[in-house]
Amino acid sequence: MQTAILLLECCDQKGIVARVSNFIVSIDGNVIDADQHSTDPQNGHFFLRIAFTFDETKISHQELTEQFTLVAQPLQAKWIIHHKFAPLRTAILVSQADHCLVDLLYRWRTQEISMHILSIISNHPDHQRLAEQHGLSYTFLKSKDKPDMEAEILEKTKDQTDFLILARYMQILSPHFLSQYGKDIINIHHSFLPSFIGANPYKQAFERGVKVIGATAHFVTEDLDEGPIICQKVESVSHRDHINELKRKGRSLEKRALAQAILDYTEHRIIRFKNKTIIFQS
Amino acid sequence: MQTAILLLECCDQKGIVARVSNFIVSIDGNVIDADQHSTDPQNGHFFLRIAFTFDETKISHQELTEQFTLVAQPLQAKWIIHHKFAPLRTAILVSQADHCLVDLLYRWRTQEISMHILSIISNHPDHQRLAEQHGLSYTFLKSKDKPDMEAEILEKTKDQTDFLILARYMQILSPHFLSQYGKDIINIHHSFLPSFIGANPYKQAFERGVKVIGATAHFVTEDLDEGPIICQKVESVSHRDHINELKRKGRSLEKRALAQAILDYTEHRIIRFKNKTIIFQS
Amino acid sequence: MQTAILLLECCDQKGIVARVSNFIVSIDGNVIDADQHSTDPQNGHFFLRIAFTFDETKISHQELTEQFTLVAQPLQAKWIIHHKFAPLRTAILVSQADHCLVDLLYRWRTQEISMHILSIISNHPDHQRLAEQHGLSYTFLKSKDKPDMEAEILEKTKDQTDFLILARYMQILSPHFLSQYGKDIINIHHSFLPSFIGANPYKQAFERGVKVIGATAHFVTEDLDEGPIICQKVESVSHRDHINELKRKGRSLEKRALAQAILDYTEHRIIRFKNKTIIFQS
Amino acid sequence: MQTAILLLECCDQKGIVARVSNFIVSIDGNVIDADQHSTDPQNGHFFLRIAFTFDETKISHQELTEQFTLVAQPLQAKWIIHHKFAPLRTAILVSQADHCLVDLLYRWRTQEISMHILSIISNHPDHQRLAEQHGLSYTFLKSKDKPDMEAEILEKTKDQTDFLILARYMQILSPHFLSQYGKDIINIHHSFLPSFIGANPYKQAFERGVKVIGATAHFVTEDLDEGPIICQKVESVSHRDHINELKRKGRSLEKRALAQAILDYTEHRIIRFKNKTIIFQS
Repeated sequence: MQTAILLLECCDQKGIVARVSNFIVSIDGNVIDADQHSTDPQNGHFFLRIAFTFDETKISHQELTEQFTLVAQPLQAKWIIHHKFAPLRTAILVSQADHCLVDLLYRWRTQEISMHILSIISNHPDHQRLAEQHGLSYTFLKSKDKPDMEAEILEKTKDQTDFLILARYMQILSPHFLSQYGKDIINIHHSFLPSFIGANPYKQAFERGVKVIGATAHFVTEDLDEGPIICQKVESVSHRDHINELKRKGRSLEKRALAQAILDYTEHRIIRFKNKTIIFQS
Repeated sequence: MQTAILLLECCDQKGIVARVSNFIVSIDGNVIDADQHSTDPQNGHFFLRIAFTFDETKISHQELTEQFTLVAQPLQAKWIIHHKFAPLRTAILVSQADHCLVDLLYRWRTQEISMHILSIISNHPDHQRLAEQHGLSYTFLKSKDKPDMEAEILEKTKDQTDFLILARYMQILSPHFLSQYGKDIINIHHSFLPSFIGANPYKQAFERGVKVIGATAHFVTEDLDEGPIICQKVESVSHRDHINELKRKGRSLEKRALAQAILDYTEHRIIRFKNKTIIFQS
Repeated sequence: MQTAILLLECCDQKGIVARVSNFIVSIDGNVIDADQHSTDPQNGHFFLRIAFTFDETKISHQELTEQFTLVAQPLQAKWIIHHKFAPLRTAILVSQADHCLVDLLYRWRTQEISMHILSIISNHPDHQRLAEQHGLSYTFLKSKDKPDMEAEILEKTKDQTDFLILARYMQILSPHFLSQYGKDIINIHHSFLPSFIGANPYKQAFERGVKVIGATAHFVTEDLDEGPIICQKVESVSHRDHINELKRKGRSLEKRALAQAILDYTEHRIIRFKNKTIIFQS
Repeated sequence: MQTAILLLECCDQKGIVARVSNFIVSIDGNVIDADQHSTDPQNGHFFLRIAFTFDETKISHQELTEQFTLVAQPLQAKWIIHHKFAPLRTAILVSQADHCLVDLLYRWRTQEISMHILSIISNHPDHQRLAEQHGLSYTFLKSKDKPDMEAEILEKTKDQTDFLILARYMQILSPHFLSQYGKDIINIHHSFLPSFIGANPYKQAFERGVKVIGATAHFVTEDLDEGPIICQKVESVSHRDHINELKRKGRSLEKRALAQAILDYTEHRIIRFKNKTIIFQS
């Protein structure tokens, strides 16, 4: 038995779940998890995630896709069927601070997060040894010229990956790069967005005197730190916490927010819609 | 258009969602929210909550129920259809501490929680005026004899209410009462169960030196503080917090945990199963 | 025995605590709680809170103050000694939403928060009955002209109160009012500042798609929502939470953040310094 | 300038802080942080932590200690002065699960936690390579005989370490070992104590149906999981979380609770008193 995950979205209308569940019955499949959301039952937008098992000796993946196309067409739905045996492929971009990288590698190595890491890419040479210890290729971006750097990243990732992870990569990716890469990129921002956009958010937080700090995992868009938010983690701070303590507490938040976002993404729990995300919970 | 909420549980099997959603299509209904859970896709137990609208000029509530009976029968399902226009009826039992009572009355008066409060019942005379200010009947249990007290409660609630709320009612209800009342009773226990069962949980917490305290809303069963847990809220404490500070912080937790449990219960989001609860999220 | 609370701030320098504690020894006092903070041991700013008991039959409050003046002078310290028997006097300003008002009145009535509430002041007539039930005077600001309204508030509060509470008062107080009143004003803002300054923060939060919302209690300054932050409370939200659910969850956060701020303020645990606060913990 | 940290406890009495701060003035020292606690101002127990700088060219560590002995004697105080240049020495004991170990090594390597790790000791051979990568000695306890194992641990740690860390070490240390080692041992228990003492706490939590899980760092005593609690971290769970998800969420809690406890311990912020802890906050 194989497990597949269907993500679907369309205008809300009567009978969507009936159609989809009748289809799964028709292929003798078994729903193991389902969750849905509508922005508004009256003329809203509808989102669905269904995980189901099926017997691939009876119906091939291609047949599955062809048959579901007929179901989805009258709904004018946007959809994709992911197969559990085919984990998403990614590359991790990182600058100097390696706490998120180390944390993700641990969760990947212990199979808490299921994905194919193709390579680690950095504008610093520092993480070569860490990559080797994990049997991963390491790309040190020697050029300091942004178009050259981005061209090199693109060459290593465009065809080889399904999405990218920015695990504290401190370069801003150009609109040109984003459109060329054309797939999802998940970033960790070290503040509670939309507070403290831009550089040195912990310094900004310290100067504002906030009593709670946060970290935000989000999709990258052309607007810096303005993309759809996936996960936010927060923690209390006090007047006793200087910038270094904020950074220390923040590292823990960044690791947790990014790891949760990557876990949800690799389990196909996320649908982007306009500038927001639907996160089907585990 | 009317809104109904179906709660259903049965052995997990293929095609449950298809059957139910086909039924809703057949009555020209529209699903506005759906959530499901299975303890295990292999021979597990399946739970479903579907909120849907339907046109009562086309199908009456009785017809709805009769027709769904035919759908549910082959599944050997246990189910109920609640109608939004018929809020649950309850009575609130309380002893001396009134913080949960005051909080619930506020949420009820401002329509945050939709329910019919039939009366307030107490073994103390203190809350008479509060009841009057809210236009509610007040029953002061004069007798100190437990069988008499319980007989009086039963008389006021057995036929008039759908469930009971113990908002810091400090008397233990007898197995006899529980079996006579025969419906759900929700209690707030002032600790993070299963820690500190029984009397004086804040004193117990202080003496153990815990660094986090909690409050637990749960269904009442014959085993004291052992019933299915609905909601737990927690907060950090330190060595600086003496018992009075634990109680102060605890009151806030108790109010929030009980209010959340009652909100979920009145919105038909809870299914009890063995000694646990399935809480379909809002 | 009387209890007094000393709040003191000065440039950090050697021997501050020695001087202050020698003074308390000299009056045969007993320290019951002490906490301090320095922004930087090298040329930073130093803050101190000491609660101590003393025998008023041996030293009067006036003598206490006179003698401590001599201690503080060489430190060039700013300081105040509060006496526990003299709770702070306040007035609560409120517009239509009364959840924070009701919550504060409950905590005041049950003596969780110790203060003298002189009156409730509102630009709506709605809370008259609530005020009466608590034996408090109620001022309905009939005029819709801001200078008139502020003049009326000033008349009722300038000499009669030590600080003001804005418990969801939706009018912006003018710089003129602030300078005329001249004392601390604590406001609750219904967002996680500095996110979502200004009107309709829950709508802003919904549209940004944040995964955590917050509420912020802060001192009022001329810059809207930019004053020193006292307390922030946060809670997770999801794509399922529409604006009404954000508001419902937010009300709980607002009540808790404002109540904590008022508790700390009335226990003399807060020192304002530049645009920040030092909160000596209980 | 050197930094020293004084931890002191004694019966609460007048003038303690005056004596200690006069002493620091007398050696021309400068207090950089101070915190205190009393269980009760009337006949309670008093605890003090003071961090101060002093000029070691003017007063040696030995002189410091000798002089302070004279200050502490009349108070009948128990005290210790730690010097910042001398980090505590420890060994980490671990069984199969390495998430806490990996996390602690990262925080140690990046100097977030300042301590001397003398060795890693395990009843499994699995972590040899990890130890080597960090330049640490690794002791694999080959014997399955508990007295032999404990004798080997004792030989490697008794004189070489100031405290021990049990980072998911799944063997119960015997009373004999505890008395022979005679110093502090910090353990991470994978539940919210006092809930779910003993084996398989996540299974116990799953079966009880709790809505919040936790992890607890505590000092080891002869009574299993009953020692003084240092730090507790908690997270919400739902009916959707099976045991594996509880374990996954729990690993994050365990790492954070243990790391916080070790950070506080190595910064000399903890005083044990009876079966509780005073944690002077950073």
